[in-house]
Amino acid sequence: MKKKSPRSARRSTVSKVALKGTVSKARRKGELRHVPWDSIPLETLNPQLGRKLIVGKDLMLARVFLKQGCIVPEHSHPNEQLTYILGGALKFWIAGKEIVVHAGEVLTIPPNMPHKAEAVEDTDDLDVFTPPRADWMTGRDKYLR
Amino acid sequence: MKKKSPRSARRSTVSKVALKGTVSKARRKGELRHVPWDSIPLETLNPQLGRKLIVGKDLMLARVFLKQGCIVPEHSHPNEQLTYILGGALKFWIAGKEIVVHAGEVLTIPPNMPHKAEAVEDTDDLDVFTPPRADWMTGRDKYLR
Repeated sequence: MKKKSPRSARRSTVSKVALKGTVSKARRKGELRHVPWDSIPLETLNPQLGRKLIVGKDLMLARVFLKQGCIVPEHSHPNEQLTYILGGALKFWIAGKEIVVHAGEVLTIPPNMPHKAEAVEDTDDLDVFTPPRADWMTGRDKYLR
Repeated sequence: MKKKSPRSARRSTVSKVALKGTVSKARRKGELRHVPWDSIPLETLNPQLGRKLIVGKDLMLARVFLKQGCIVPEHSHPNEQLTYILGGALKFWIAGKEIVVHAGEVLTIPPNMPHKAEAVEDTDDLDVFTPPRADWMTGRDKYLR
């Protein structure tokens, strides 16, 4: 069983999701792979949200495709996250602020910092995580479905 | 002092660079930051090679801009690397293979795997590392200069 981080547990409410199973205990093997994004089938989580994953040893790249108006409910995870918006724009509610991240911009999100997001436009988002999001790899991500 | 990885040391020759100081011992603090790539000055390493870095706690994003014909000499590092080509194309020599990575494609490079690259076209490359490349953060990267 995974433990909630103390910070997430302390802040957890009905509207906030502190995610279990977000860190894999599996020791992944790093291997050389050449992966065109086009070769990966789109995983459809809901009609507004699709995703593709590339997972290494301790790194995960995720392409997240959000339709305008798509909301990612507030949640937190022990995985560090860097969000690079490739196209469109995402509005974040994080650390008491509202931040709109546009194409060509990056948001650095420390571990266990609760955040919510809404797609201001149709958005092509590259999320980078360490370690990989075990909940995304195994489908234990009900907050998105 | 950092130790060479056994694999890198074993393979090291005049033409191969096993990089010291590629893993920071500093415990970086994760913090929330909103960073447009346009706000970061381009670091010019040589007339064919420029770079911008965004560094988090255990993650680093690097935009690497290579002119056609630019060669990155063979080297290795303990940092895991994912290379996502945003524009152009990079040819890699790695693990006895030649792999051309085009725009929209990713190469996953495990820790300590020697690799050399050449820009087949003018290239906009996004490199993701964990942990961050201490040699890139401190300028101890003579193989690129």
